[in-house]
Amino acid sequence: MKRREFIKKAGAGAIAAGAAMGAAVPAIAAKPVIWKMVTTWPPHFPMLGEGADYIAQLVNEMSGGKFKINVYGAGELVPGLGVFDAVSQGTVEMGHGAAYYWAGKAPAAQFFAAVPFGFNAQSQNAWVASGGGMALWEEIYKPFNLKPYLGGNTGVQMGGWFNKEINSIEDLKGLKMRIPGLGGKVLAKAGGNAILVAGGEIYTNLDRGVIDATEWVGPYHDLKMGFYKVAKYYYYPGWHEPGTTLEAMVNLNAYEALSPEFKAILDTAIERTNSWMLAEFEAKNNDALNELITKHNVQLKKFPDDVLKQLKTYADEVLEEVAAGDPMSRKVLDSFKAFRAKIYEWNKITEEPYHQFKYI
Amino acid sequence: MKRREFIKKAGAGAIAAGAAMGAAVPAIAAKPVIWKMVTTWPPHFPMLGEGADYIAQLVNEMSGGKFKINVYGAGELVPGLGVFDAVSQGTVEMGHGAAYYWAGKAPAAQFFAAVPFGFNAQSQNAWVASGGGMALWEEIYKPFNLKPYLGGNTGVQMGGWFNKEINSIEDLKGLKMRIPGLGGKVLAKAGGNAILVAGGEIYTNLDRGVIDATEWVGPYHDLKMGFYKVAKYYYYPGWHEPGTTLEAMVNLNAYEALSPEFKAILDTAIERTNSWMLAEFEAKNNDALNELITKHNVQLKKFPDDVLKQLKTYADEVLEEVAAGDPMSRKVLDSFKAFRAKIYEWNKITEEPYHQFKYI
Repeated sequence: MKRREFIKKAGAGAIAAGAAMGAAVPAIAAKPVIWKMVTTWPPHFPMLGEGADYIAQLVNEMSGGKFKINVYGAGELVPGLGVFDAVSQGTVEMGHGAAYYWAGKAPAAQFFAAVPFGFNAQSQNAWVASGGGMALWEEIYKPFNLKPYLGGNTGVQMGGWFNKEINSIEDLKGLKMRIPGLGGKVLAKAGGNAILVAGGEIYTNLDRGVIDATEWVGPYHDLKMGFYKVAKYYYYPGWHEPGTTLEAMVNLNAYEALSPEFKAILDTAIERTNSWMLAEFEAKNNDALNELITKHNVQLKKFPDDVLKQLKTYADEVLEEVAAGDPMSRKVLDSFKAFRAKIYEWNKITEEPYHQFKYI
Repeated sequence: MKRREFIKKAGAGAIAAGAAMGAAVPAIAAKPVIWKMVTTWPPHFPMLGEGADYIAQLVNEMSGGKFKINVYGAGELVPGLGVFDAVSQGTVEMGHGAAYYWAGKAPAAQFFAAVPFGFNAQSQNAWVASGGGMALWEEIYKPFNLKPYLGGNTGVQMGGWFNKEINSIEDLKGLKMRIPGLGGKVLAKAGGNAILVAGGEIYTNLDRGVIDATEWVGPYHDLKMGFYKVAKYYYYPGWHEPGTTLEAMVNLNAYEALSPEFKAILDTAIERTNSWMLAEFEAKNNDALNELITKHNVQLKKFPDDVLKQLKTYADEVLEEVAAGDPMSRKVLDSFKAFRAKIYEWNKITEEPYHQFKYI
């Protein structure tokens, strides 16, 4: 039922309408909360848009249909990059996207999406949920009347599609690559041209030589995009996005108007989606990678160590530059670096030897 | 409100009671579902028992107090190792523990707790949630009238506390070590004695030389146990438990009696707890490790590679032996190995290079 229709019926005699449907529940209990969620994804986009759908589904199920969220793809209600403003201004109650899209409004937001040589999914979740990150993220979004959430994670992404081999840092000079955010700034330091191209236009641009290279997500998504038809080399690791966090955001007034149980239902639906998405990525990426290699003859390549080393140096510079220009970013970077030092020490004796088990 | 009191009040005139409390809600809507959850943990045991508490808290919040779960520590209602039977028989509706405790009843259950040289948390979640594992786990538990859930994860554990250095596989011969489950069987193949000791008795046994070594969880928990006072060497990695999964289990009849919204609320509360616990472990373990090393002079040591190699060979033998004796375990091991092959390939180009970023 659409909100408008509901209000009409409620006004005209909801009890009678309820009785006609065979329900004995009083009208006041049956009045649902109906929200709109706008997203930066094409409608029902695999895993990412599906994550937004999953949040809505869980909220609907848990509330017994009393709290409904209608999900809109990019452009259906507002443009993909209009999500932040629409939720901030209360045009809609909720959004789903990734925080690096809002770097122009709040530079510090980028740390909660993807940082070159930053955290993988597990460390990002630990930093945000249990290591002080969430308080900072809330501080960034509060002036915009927004409440942020960890709303999914892609895991470690791939490094991208190239039409030539990358054998030294020199090979990035003059390279026209589709790579957004902080990763793009790192490429620029290496003399490359970071070009912004919307998802739907990457293939054509790569095919026509408007760009020489592109990153996207990982094998599962990249296979669907057909990049293997127009680029030969598929590089790893995704140094620029080692654990990209998707975000859900909620208008603070809309949130405060919810009952305590609907707040808890919303919070918990989003948290479940955060882990669901990572499990999906981890379970499905390798099959797609195999198809790319065996069926489409893609050449899988690793960035040389000295290229990664130089990119990491540039990445550190980029992060310090962001922090120098914005006090909130300084605060977030300090927290990020302190947590990184700690989790690096811990992972040296846990995750790192774990990943060596396969060779012994 | 206790169930008995509630029934009394409901019988005697719940509407009047409700009115006296200033509530206008009809009695039928106010009748709560009240469950008991028994656990294998001491009451409110850090992170593990707190995870059980967190599930109950979330369910209470999301249902607006209409679905309450009372949590009991080991021995409060049934003994820790009586959880499986109590939930299976419907004495209580729900339990929280770890599936390797039920190896005597269902050997295949062990794969859903900890496998020597098995999965870390991320891969375990991917296998169970998105790689076919959950269907198998449900198949194992169905004859017991139980529904299983991923109910938390410790991350990669530590290898344990020793009073002598482990320089070769020979050093494990004759070693009396507290190590349960499949890890214990692996130690036995190396000539060691795997001894079962309840958590509360480990310290004294180690102090008195009844055992020479023990594993427990990780720095956060091991620090609280005070093992550093009676053992000198703290070994890593936890080859025997690289991503121990905690479990929630629900009696199937009790589950089926729930409304669709309470089913969804319960499912989602448990999923959120699963990721919450891992974030807590990852965020807190390193501080405790630092305290062990700097304040208590614990010597951190890595098992030599050739020791790990031999243990892995034994672990493979143990898994095949479990599978040879039980058709369900065979089925689970086949799924486990197929997923492991796939996720190993994927992690080679994602998580593994990620963990090398710190050195470049």
